[in-house]
Amino acid sequence: MNRKEFRDLATPAEAREAIDSLALEAGIERVPLAEARGRVLVARLDAELDVPGFDRASLDGYALKARDTFGADEADPARLELVGEVHAGEEPDVTLEEGQAAEISTGAVMPDGADAMVAVERTDMDSEGDDVLVRTAVAPGDNVMFAGADVAAGERALGPGTQITPRDIGLLSALGVDEVPVKARPRVGIVSTGDELVRPGENLASERGEIYDVNSYTIAAGVEDAGGEAVLYPHAGDDQDEMERILREAADECDLVLSSGSTSASAVDVIYRVIEEQGELLLHGVSVKPGKPMLIGRLDDSAYVGLPGYPVSAMMVFRTFVAPAIREAAGIPEPASATVAGRLARQERFEEGRHRLMPVGLVTDGDGEPLVYPVDKGSGATTTLADADGVVEVGPETDYLEAGEPVTVTLFSPDVRPPTLFAVGEDDPTFSRVLDGLANPRYLSVGTRPGLRRLREGVPDVVVAAGPLEADVETTELGRWEREWGLVVRAGNPDEIERLADLIDRDLRFINRTTDSGLRSSLDATIADLADDRGTTRRELTAAIDGHDLGLRAHESPARKVIAGDADAGLGLRETADRLDLGFVPIGEQPVWVLANPDRTDKDGVRELEKALADVQ
Amino acid sequence: MNRKEFRDLATPAEAREAIDSLALEAGIERVPLAEARGRVLVARLDAELDVPGFDRASLDGYALKARDTFGADEADPARLELVGEVHAGEEPDVTLEEGQAAEISTGAVMPDGADAMVAVERTDMDSEGDDVLVRTAVAPGDNVMFAGADVAAGERALGPGTQITPRDIGLLSALGVDEVPVKARPRVGIVSTGDELVRPGENLASERGEIYDVNSYTIAAGVEDAGGEAVLYPHAGDDQDEMERILREAADECDLVLSSGSTSASAVDVIYRVIEEQGELLLHGVSVKPGKPMLIGRLDDSAYVGLPGYPVSAMMVFRTFVAPAIREAAGIPEPASATVAGRLARQERFEEGRHRLMPVGLVTDGDGEPLVYPVDKGSGATTTLADADGVVEVGPETDYLEAGEPVTVTLFSPDVRPPTLFAVGEDDPTFSRVLDGLANPRYLSVGTRPGLRRLREGVPDVVVAAGPLEADVETTELGRWEREWGLVVRAGNPDEIERLADLIDRDLRFINRTTDSGLRSSLDATIADLADDRGTTRRELTAAIDGHDLGLRAHESPARKVIAGDADAGLGLRETADRLDLGFVPIGEQPVWVLANPDRTDKDGVRELEKALADVQ
Repeated sequence: MNRKEFRDLATPAEAREAIDSLALEAGIERVPLAEARGRVLVARLDAELDVPGFDRASLDGYALKARDTFGADEADPARLELVGEVHAGEEPDVTLEEGQAAEISTGAVMPDGADAMVAVERTDMDSEGDDVLVRTAVAPGDNVMFAGADVAAGERALGPGTQITPRDIGLLSALGVDEVPVKARPRVGIVSTGDELVRPGENLASERGEIYDVNSYTIAAGVEDAGGEAVLYPHAGDDQDEMERILREAADECDLVLSSGSTSASAVDVIYRVIEEQGELLLHGVSVKPGKPMLIGRLDDSAYVGLPGYPVSAMMVFRTFVAPAIREAAGIPEPASATVAGRLARQERFEEGRHRLMPVGLVTDGDGEPLVYPVDKGSGATTTLADADGVVEVGPETDYLEAGEPVTVTLFSPDVRPPTLFAVGEDDPTFSRVLDGLANPRYLSVGTRPGLRRLREGVPDVVVAAGPLEADVETTELGRWEREWGLVVRAGNPDEIERLADLIDRDLRFINRTTDSGLRSSLDATIADLADDRGTTRRELTAAIDGHDLGLRAHESPARKVIAGDADAGLGLRETADRLDLGFVPIGEQPVWVLANPDRTDKDGVRELEKALADVQ
Repeated sequence: MNRKEFRDLATPAEAREAIDSLALEAGIERVPLAEARGRVLVARLDAELDVPGFDRASLDGYALKARDTFGADEADPARLELVGEVHAGEEPDVTLEEGQAAEISTGAVMPDGADAMVAVERTDMDSEGDDVLVRTAVAPGDNVMFAGADVAAGERALGPGTQITPRDIGLLSALGVDEVPVKARPRVGIVSTGDELVRPGENLASERGEIYDVNSYTIAAGVEDAGGEAVLYPHAGDDQDEMERILREAADECDLVLSSGSTSASAVDVIYRVIEEQGELLLHGVSVKPGKPMLIGRLDDSAYVGLPGYPVSAMMVFRTFVAPAIREAAGIPEPASATVAGRLARQERFEEGRHRLMPVGLVTDGDGEPLVYPVDKGSGATTTLADADGVVEVGPETDYLEAGEPVTVTLFSPDVRPPTLFAVGEDDPTFSRVLDGLANPRYLSVGTRPGLRRLREGVPDVVVAAGPLEADVETTELGRWEREWGLVVRAGNPDEIERLADLIDRDLRFINRTTDSGLRSSLDATIADLADDRGTTRRELTAAIDGHDLGLRAHESPARKVIAGDADAGLGLRETADRLDLGFVPIGEQPVWVLANPDRTDKDGVRELEKALADVQ
């Protein structure tokens, strides 16, 4: 195992400098007006015409010479000879002389000789229809929008760097502009490597250790969010020649190449070789956690950043170092960074002296104050960020933060809305359906025991608990129902499993749940009763069950092992068996409680949940 | 002029209700994962597999049985027989017995029989390479990510109504999901009517009163902003049959039809007829300003809203009433409404008892406090909103707001950034170039005199003034330069115009600027000098100039009239003549000053301007 080590890690500031020095640029393109929304102008646009382009009637009425109405009023209207009419979209075919008027529609061109107009409501026609009686005096310019009054030719319309809004599109439309020069979106190539990676939608061979490629689509979405254009390259595997070919192709076609995925030494070797031959390595390794194994350099004329393989690390490094460079190249201003000040829910220790980017979730406590809790499923986890709301940055000199310490959370985006309800505990299909009817809840299915522990620590609003319950924490019951549990078996129950005792007495392969699960607690209680009946110990019986000690975390996983042929029976719910078209051997019913932190019962989200639970029994 | 009148105007609340009752809906579509960012899930997604799908090594090292390492330490390592190796992406071909270990790479499948692993750094190979010496004790599960630890099969992954972020795309990728069911974007048809409207990019016949169609692209951009899909229908003109055909086609193809553009009675008549024959009219006319002439109803199965013709009214009505309905149909949450509290810069009176949506601009005063000023170019103006930052709503019972009154501005969007510098005054090409180098300035070219008046009123930061100056307001000079002005004439000066006096003594058509302009002040001063020389009055001379009283607002407009053949000479700058390839007859030089409100000289934007002006003379 001969691998390049990360020595002399760069600081985050040095990493930012290195990326800045790549001077990412994407040039200019012209886009049609209909596609200009959100794009960034590269040059000033001056008006090339007057808007309106003519003196324009603002009302329906009569064009006239203002001086012909001087002194006119209701008692003594001015009588003007009607000599024509002008409609919108028509060229006037009349010129007014003294004492004359022309009928005119809103938006029409003022005829020559007219210098004002009067609204139709302030006039009468004489009985013959030849003259119009004007019952008010008007001043020159009244009810006329003069040419250029809206925008005048030569006027500065939009400056360079303007990010085009619908309102700017209104201005550009008025000027007749149908194409605008904007900053091109930087093309960002994404090269994913690693033999074990499979694109979503394709078949996965878990037995060979294959996993879905998380980084490609996630980073691509991040690129688009930052105003870039993401180009996904075919998956390169660990074939060195193929990887090299794809890297060179991406460098040729893109402004920035991001590699991601493989943690294998051979992939790193190829990247080193290509950079050495056709580029420059500026930086290798950054003192930030997560994110240490980061490369910054050039490949031919393209900028290059190597992202860590672990999805959470890759995304954090992307957000922190790469997205700002893409936004700058696209001319898009840094988003107004939405931050939330809160207190840390529990003590957090940091082992290494690295700058730390800590994904956190937010929950509102009983006083309406934000409570901040770290979200960490371990370094290989792919889904941590989906359960988080933002990031707390912690400097390398900090060894730990106390519970209650004030921290500032930078939200993942300004429109992140922390959940209205934060629930943890047992996986339960009924509860999941209830959540479907709520606005923006968060649920972490950690199991009954860890759920109760977290409630005790004061973080979640609500715990879902199932099975025999040792209540060592004060809670408020919001709802309760029963669920049927037992053995999930093959469709039609071909092994004719009839009761729990068959697992002990017959040669059957069983799949259990972990001890975190309330189902496991009910199972173990039932085995203990059976041991009493038989006059033996629980341990004696569990030792006779092939697979009792093999506990899976997820409530559907045992059933899926049965489908896969890896087991004859799995611990599960009747509902799961029905949904997956499997057989079911009932053992018992167990209660499911929804229990709230008593301090949180007044929270809107908790009240909403309580209301929704009223329909469940 | 027989036109339907707006009687019994509905309240804004009634208009909202009427739009809600249309129950705009767009159905469901399935989109590939790569296009899912920002879309809204219609159904809960549960995990259908465990992530990881196997027990996974978290490090490079050795898989082993934990109990074989009990008691091992640096002094007394455990010796295990090396029986194989497993790489990422490979199926293990080894099963561990007691006392055995297998080399394993990060991400690889744990072999049968192993229940933990040790990092390579904590081991040594014995000299023969057959055994590995483990210098630490490990517990079962150490350095192993168990199947389902990240996401477990059956677990709730994303709830209905989730607006998909890049982080959610990470979760979906991990689950192998490559297509998601999302709310379809509502299709919104935009039908623009009116004989006088021309699509941007086409040729405009101003003499016929044609203007560019502002509403179509602007409303389309608003529709896309709100999460809808805009469909622009061909421009219908005022041909009733054609308009009817297009309306019916749009109703057939879209979830919502918006008509906009024409103010003509015949267009309204067609819309009435089609609604009567194939729909339902719910509401006609809303007591809101701008926006009164609004229609709400149904056309066949499509919702229908008739927007006012004037662009500012159309956009305000769209934003206030229509955009929320589109967002709701698209499942997109209302944007976090960004508001700014400020003081009104000057008194504002409201004549009619209607609910008022007042477009306003924002400027920071000398104390760093937001000052709010109404932006209103008149009801026919198309470009008002491009100069505004947001809206102040004023209830119908309010007749006026005092200067200094606290008001709340709802920004057009949360990422609107009020300008860093607010300048007004004379149009000047040099100043415009200086602005190009600044971040987010705003410039209103209102002319020298109105600019000075506004500075006196305390609203803008800076005024640009040109020509003979009566300084009746205290200012701080930030910069000053000279510009050459005179007569812009046809290329090559075929009329051989040599001096100002030619306008008086010869039969030439001239185009002037308005009295707001500093150029006009310089021209009038020069004419006064000439009158002194000739022993006559200024009035005598100006009466002899054909076109002296015809003043255009824009600095380029006189030159453009020369190009169009409407005049022989226009008042203008040498720079304008050069840029438009016209001839130029110099008359004089005039000073241009950039003058700041003395209270604002410490503002960042003003300092930045002062720095930029240092390079100009």
